Amino acid sequence: MTIDISDIPALARGCAVLGTGGGGDVRTGSLAAIRAIQTYGPVPLIELADLPADALVVPLSGIGAPTVSHEMIHGEDEPKRIAEEIERIFGRPPAAVMSSEIGGANGVAPVAWAAQLGLPLLDADGMGRAFPEVQMVSMYVAGLPADLVIMSDIVGNIVTIRPIDGLWSERLARAVCVAAGSHALMADYVLTAAQARGAVIEGTVTRALAVGRATEGTAEPLRALAERLGAARLITGKLTDVERRTTGGFVRGTATIEGTGDDRGRTLTLELQNENLVALENGRPRAMVPDLITVVDTETAAAVQTEGLRYGQRVTVLAWPCDPLWRTPKGLETAGPRAFGYDLEYVPIEELVKGELRG
Amino acid sequence: MTIDISDIPALARGCAVLGTGGGGDVRTGSLAAIRAIQTYGPVPLIELADLPADALVVPLSGIGAPTVSHEMIHGEDEPKRIAEEIERIFGRPPAAVMSSEIGGANGVAPVAWAAQLGLPLLDADGMGRAFPEVQMVSMYVAGLPADLVIMSDIVGNIVTIRPIDGLWSERLARAVCVAAGSHALMADYVLTAAQARGAVIEGTVTRALAVGRATEGTAEPLRALAERLGAARLITGKLTDVERRTTGGFVRGTATIEGTGDDRGRTLTLELQNENLVALENGRPRAMVPDLITVVDTETAAAVQTEGLRYGQRVTVLAWPCDPLWRTPKGLETAGPRAFGYDLEYVPIEELVKGELRG
Repeated sequence: MTIDISDIPALARGCAVLGTGGGGDVRTGSLAAIRAIQTYGPVPLIELADLPADALVVPLSGIGAPTVSHEMIHGEDEPKRIAEEIERIFGRPPAAVMSSEIGGANGVAPVAWAAQLGLPLLDADGMGRAFPEVQMVSMYVAGLPADLVIMSDIVGNIVTIRPIDGLWSERLARAVCVAAGSHALMADYVLTAAQARGAVIEGTVTRALAVGRATEGTAEPLRALAERLGAARLITGKLTDVERRTTGGFVRGTATIEGTGDDRGRTLTLELQNENLVALENGRPRAMVPDLITVVDTETAAAVQTEGLRYGQRVTVLAWPCDPLWRTPKGLETAGPRAFGYDLEYVPIEELVKGELRG
Repeated sequence: MTIDISDIPALARGCAVLGTGGGGDVRTGSLAAIRAIQTYGPVPLIELADLPADALVVPLSGIGAPTVSHEMIHGEDEPKRIAEEIERIFGRPPAAVMSSEIGGANGVAPVAWAAQLGLPLLDADGMGRAFPEVQMVSMYVAGLPADLVIMSDIVGNIVTIRPIDGLWSERLARAVCVAAGSHALMADYVLTAAQARGAVIEGTVTRALAVGRATEGTAEPLRALAERLGAARLITGKLTDVERRTTGGFVRGTATIEGTGDDRGRTLTLELQNENLVALENGRPRAMVPDLITVVDTETAAAVQTEGLRYGQRVTVLAWPCDPLWRTPKGLETAGPRAFGYDLEYVPIEELVKGELRG
C-alpha cells in the first residue's frame, strides 16, 4: 500500500480526531505532505514485519506549541539533517520513518518527511493519539532506554541529547525547542525493527485513514464517527468560554460547553494542556487522560483542535478508550491524570460512561 | 612544568583578578583542583608547540550563573562523559585540556578536569579574561566555525550541539544550561593543535600564576598588582550601593563606589553582566569592555567578584588593556560595549586614562 495525495484529506481528518485537540494543526502537515508527494512521489506504507531486525526506524515528530506551528512551517532540510546525524552515530542510514504521535499534524507530516528522505512510512506510532510531553511515548512505557534525542530546527542547528531518562529527555528537548522558537523536528528513540516490536502501537496510520473516511458520504457524520471510534458522546452544545495561554512551549487552559437540545441545562468543562485531558461535569470527571477526548463540530464531525476553539461554536465532545498500553501501571504513571498535575485517580471511560460507548 | 597543589592559591588569585568580577568563584574551582591533584597527581602544563598538529585540544568551561556555582559543584564524571563523546565523534580521545576562560573558576577548575582525565593542561585560553557568553571566545573571533558544543551536567545528561554559528551556540547552550539547573560543564570548539594556533590566547595560565604571585610577600600588594597588570587605578573608596539580580542564567546589576582619601567627592559606577563591563564617572566612561575592569580589596589587593560585592567594602577599581585580538573589528563586534547592549563607541583604556597606566 502507498499513501498518495488523494489519501491526505482522510488521513488529516483522522489524525485530527485522534489528536484530542493537540498534536498541531493538520492543515500545515497536510500541505507539507501534499507538496512532498508532488515532488518525490507516493510514500510506501509498510508494516513492522516487512523490516529486517536490524533496520533503523526513526520516529519523527514536531515538538512545540501548536499556536506557533501555524506560523512556522518545517523546512525540507530538517529530516535530512536528522538522517545525516543518525548515519554519523549508527554508521548506517534509517530504513523507515515512523510518526511518534499519530494525533494531529504529527500524524500527517511524517508522510512529507518520509517522502523527502525517500523512505517508507511505518504503519505505527508511539502514542495512538497525541500527548504533550516527549517522554509520553509507548517506547518509554515499554521500558526502552530514552537515551537519544536528535533535534533539527528551521535555522539549521542540530542538537543531540543523550538523556539519563525520559523526564530529562523532555526537560532538555523542551528547553532546546523553546530556544529555537518553540518549534523543531525531533527524532526520539532511534529503534531497530527488533526493538520496535511490542514497543510501538501498530496499525495506527491505517486506523487514522479509516477514522477519516468514516465521515465521508454519510448523512450522519457524527453518528458514523462515534461508531467507528467506539466513542461516547459526552455533550452536544455551545462553546461558552475558552481560556488559553501559551507558556514554555505549551498551550494551557479550559473550555466550557453548555448543552443544547437534549443536553440543555448541562455544562461540561474541558481541561487543556495542548490536548483535551479531563472532561468534568458538576466537578466530577466524565473522561480523563490517557483515554481520548475530542471536540468535534456537531454538523460535520470534523475535529476542533485546542487552538481552534471559539466562543459560540456548536460542538459535540466524544470520548473513547485508549490503547491498553496506557492503562498499565507504567502507562498511567507516564500519562495518567497525575502525570499532568490533576489530583484524580484514573477511572477508565468504560466505567465513567457505562453503556454509552458506541460501535 | 607541572601544576601542583602549592600553585593553586596563586593561580586562583590570578584567575580571580583576570575574571573582572565573573567566571565563577575561584574557591570552588580551587577545592576541585586540590582534590583532583591529591587523587591523580600534579598536572603537566604544556605549550601548543608541544602538541602534534592533529592532537585534539578540548576547551572546557563551566557555564551558568556564578551564584549557582557556589552551591552546585561539578561532579567527577562530567569531564569523562565529554571525553567519551569526543572519542565517539572524532574516533580518538582528546590530548589536552584547555581553559575556555582563564578568568575566575573557569581558569582554576580545568586543572581538576585535566587531572581527572589524566591529560596535560594547555598554557592558553580562549579569552584572556572572563566573558559571560558562549560565543565570546578567541576561536570565534579568529573565524573558526562554531560547529560543535558538548555539554555534560551533574545529573549525567550529555547534549551535543551542532550550531550554525556562535550566536546559536550561545542561545542553545544557555537554554540547556538553564534546564540543567543553571550549571553545566561544556566543551566548545574541539580543536586540533593546528587549528588552535593563532586562535587561542597563549601563555595565560602562566600569566594568571604570575598575577597571583605578584601580591605575595609585599607590603604594598595593591601597587604590586597594578604594576604587574599594567593597570590604572580608577578609584579607591567604599561600596555604597549594589544592585544585582539573577535571570536567565546571568547575574546583572550595578555597583556604586564613593571615593575616599584622595578620591573623596568622586563616584564611580560599574555596570555588571556576570563581569564588570563598564566603569562610569559623571556619566562618562572611564573604562569599558573588552578592556579589563576588576574590583579589588584595597588592603589585600584580592579580587572581589560580582557576587561578593557588599555594602561598605573598601575597594579599589583597576582597569587595564585587553588582548589585541579583542580590539579587532570582529573582536569588538563580538565583545565590545554594543555586544552587551551599551550605546557606547569603544575607546581603549589607554585613551580614557591617559598616563595613568602602571607597569
